[in-house]
Amino acid sequence: MTDAFKQSGQLQKAPENFVSDSLAKEITAKGLNTTRRRFLLQSFFAAAVAATPRLNHARNVDGDPNILNLPEHSTTLGKPVIANPYGMPSKYETNILRRQSPGLTRVNEASVSFAPLQGLFGIITPSGLHFERHHQGWQDIDPSQHRFMVNGLVKNPKVYTMDDLMRLPSVSRMHFIECGANSAMEWGNVAVPTVQYTHGMLSCSEFTGVLLSTLLDDCGYDKKQAKFILAEGADGSSMTRTVPIHQAMDDVMVVWGMNGEMLRPENGYPLRLVVPGVQGVSSVKWLRRIEVGDQPYATKDEAVHYIDLMPDGKHRQYTSIQECKSVITSPSGGQALLEKGFYNVTGLAWSGRGKVKRVDVSMDGGKNWKTARLESPVLPKCLTRFNVDWVWDGSPAILQSRAMDETGYVQPKINQLRAVRGKRSIYHNNAIQSWQVADTGEVSNVQAY
Amino acid sequence: MTDAFKQSGQLQKAPENFVSDSLAKEITAKGLNTTRRRFLLQSFFAAAVAATPRLNHARNVDGDPNILNLPEHSTTLGKPVIANPYGMPSKYETNILRRQSPGLTRVNEASVSFAPLQGLFGIITPSGLHFERHHQGWQDIDPSQHRFMVNGLVKNPKVYTMDDLMRLPSVSRMHFIECGANSAMEWGNVAVPTVQYTHGMLSCSEFTGVLLSTLLDDCGYDKKQAKFILAEGADGSSMTRTVPIHQAMDDVMVVWGMNGEMLRPENGYPLRLVVPGVQGVSSVKWLRRIEVGDQPYATKDEAVHYIDLMPDGKHRQYTSIQECKSVITSPSGGQALLEKGFYNVTGLAWSGRGKVKRVDVSMDGGKNWKTARLESPVLPKCLTRFNVDWVWDGSPAILQSRAMDETGYVQPKINQLRAVRGKRSIYHNNAIQSWQVADTGEVSNVQAY
Repeated sequence: MTDAFKQSGQLQKAPENFVSDSLAKEITAKGLNTTRRRFLLQSFFAAAVAATPRLNHARNVDGDPNILNLPEHSTTLGKPVIANPYGMPSKYETNILRRQSPGLTRVNEASVSFAPLQGLFGIITPSGLHFERHHQGWQDIDPSQHRFMVNGLVKNPKVYTMDDLMRLPSVSRMHFIECGANSAMEWGNVAVPTVQYTHGMLSCSEFTGVLLSTLLDDCGYDKKQAKFILAEGADGSSMTRTVPIHQAMDDVMVVWGMNGEMLRPENGYPLRLVVPGVQGVSSVKWLRRIEVGDQPYATKDEAVHYIDLMPDGKHRQYTSIQECKSVITSPSGGQALLEKGFYNVTGLAWSGRGKVKRVDVSMDGGKNWKTARLESPVLPKCLTRFNVDWVWDGSPAILQSRAMDETGYVQPKINQLRAVRGKRSIYHNNAIQSWQVADTGEVSNVQAY
Repeated sequence: MTDAFKQSGQLQKAPENFVSDSLAKEITAKGLNTTRRRFLLQSFFAAAVAATPRLNHARNVDGDPNILNLPEHSTTLGKPVIANPYGMPSKYETNILRRQSPGLTRVNEASVSFAPLQGLFGIITPSGLHFERHHQGWQDIDPSQHRFMVNGLVKNPKVYTMDDLMRLPSVSRMHFIECGANSAMEWGNVAVPTVQYTHGMLSCSEFTGVLLSTLLDDCGYDKKQAKFILAEGADGSSMTRTVPIHQAMDDVMVVWGMNGEMLRPENGYPLRLVVPGVQGVSSVKWLRRIEVGDQPYATKDEAVHYIDLMPDGKHRQYTSIQECKSVITSPSGGQALLEKGFYNVTGLAWSGRGKVKRVDVSMDGGKNWKTARLESPVLPKCLTRFNVDWVWDGSPAILQSRAMDETGYVQPKINQLRAVRGKRSIYHNNAIQSWQVADTGEVSNVQAY
């Protein structure tokens, strides 16, 4: 063993002097709470004592009283491999779940579950926590029986099996899916307490499939007449959505893979459309048909639903792009800062028009802004994770994030949006979100201009 | 409804003439099997008939005999949202599991489970299918009780709680983890039939945590004397690994997040080290301690295990980098091509030294090579998904992939590796993998130079 290794053994006799000067300086620099730090130091001594016997592998620790201080997991045989051939989260993480907003819809088969953004990291949403929005419940469709048809203004209408599709040139890309109604409750008032309910109809995955352009070429679509496609789902609601042909031929995917494995049933297994950057409803699940046409289809799902109610009482249709938006996910509503000091403020930014270029964060309700660090990779029409340092001095604060995308578009304030769109909309609220930190440390949803 | 929409109604009377010329041409062009295509066309007519009544939403379909042709999932109410508040794969995907190689180790607590690479897409490994390698079984550690210590050649030794760590400046990055013994069986002979067992000790995740450099700075490590760190796990095996200080201060992460959520227990919950690009054993799970020292530690896990047996009988220690490597995951051993025609050949490439620059694929055992498409994003020390088109003419073929990384290093052939390393090694086999396609379509593991 090296000298350095032996050195750790000395910790068994806790060197109390190291607490003093250097640590005091560190506490001042970091702004950490002294009481809490003292508690940690006590834990440190305990841990050091506990850990030491195991550090010296050569020593027989039988009969050593210190062995009793070791946690059980360090002294026992654990569970074997493939105890779970398909693994699950820890028993200590059972609070991180999709949640439904009770009473939001009349039946649970035509409702929403929200992703727990406050407890998630990075940009990939675990497939088990991807938000849901169903119109007639979800189905687990037998892929060997599933058929996918391309018809309409094509030379060769075709029906594909899943095997047929999975033999075609495939692509894998990371994209967000956001429901057009995400943050809907914020149009009129501050209705919901947590980021799970304000922004949780948002998820991001690595999707694998075939480009729709490959299929439309394969079927020989009519390049002169084709102006739109209709996508249709195989669930009982026969969800249908119109997509302009220029989008369909750009980056729209017919997808079977999600985060490395087959789609989950509630996300459209075995086949869904993914229309990057566009409100989630266009990414039709349980996809059974694409029809090529020369006009928008104005189906029930786009003529009556998913339309923007303007201040003059008119409805605006086909406003599908999810504009640049961001939200701080931690600290966020319902959480509490337990003490003053350093915090990593983190959140998500995205744009339906391309890459996020910059995210600024304010701790004083928009007076001063600080540019956040963007984690790699920064991809088009994909979530981007941002982080920024903050030392909380214990006084009230209002946290906001403001994203800018590569087109130069800047995320608006809620009053700017309302000036144009009124207060009665449901869809396409991409306003800056404000979280108020009280002097108690409690964080709540507020509106601040 | 538009004309184009009405047009789909005509499909109810199947327009048999469209089968003829254009499709025949397409079959020739694509090399698709005619018999199979005829079967599909028959399905298409059936599907067209079946689908039509639902297309016309305005019509009352009660009593329509065609409604009987619709699958049950298109005529029933599905399951409600949050039927699974934490979602699971489809009941049709229960074959895609981690698997153990029986008899590989004497006890299942010190064994391996392999990821089903043949059934995965993109670069993200679903956390439930991440490969496992344990030395004394896995534990589900209470994060509120877990402590992490930094000691040794540091000014301020510290013990951190999980809360302490999660307040520090965090980063999210995608990296692969590959066991140093991946493809071990291929050193001497062709031992295993599928890519799950040849290459399945390989996974890739988006990790979130704090850079180890942030923690070493926080504790004031001794910049003059510090040459190595020791990482130690909290499981019963007290797994310990030495990492050079230049690596520790570069991109090594102390991680709690994996693919958006907390680490899974079998992957080190609540805290693990991730040493990007280095054999998996260094990414110590259930991390409880980092010690800074001035020499390599030569612990049991690096003096006796994870060493390279050279042809002259000597052992080579600390050969930790996972060199550039690739493998075709589909088609791969144990799979079968059911017919001639077009296939998307797909696989994974990676390098412990940075980004993958190029992947070439051969269908004739290395005589001719074709450059594959790389899916975005291509990130350093991360898996890269590649795809390449192939029309199989029904004759025997040998499929190989050869990756090159940004340093210019080219993945070697197995006989090139053996010339230097012999045949008795276990670790660090990054040779080109060969899959033989028989004229029956069956794919098997062979060695070809």
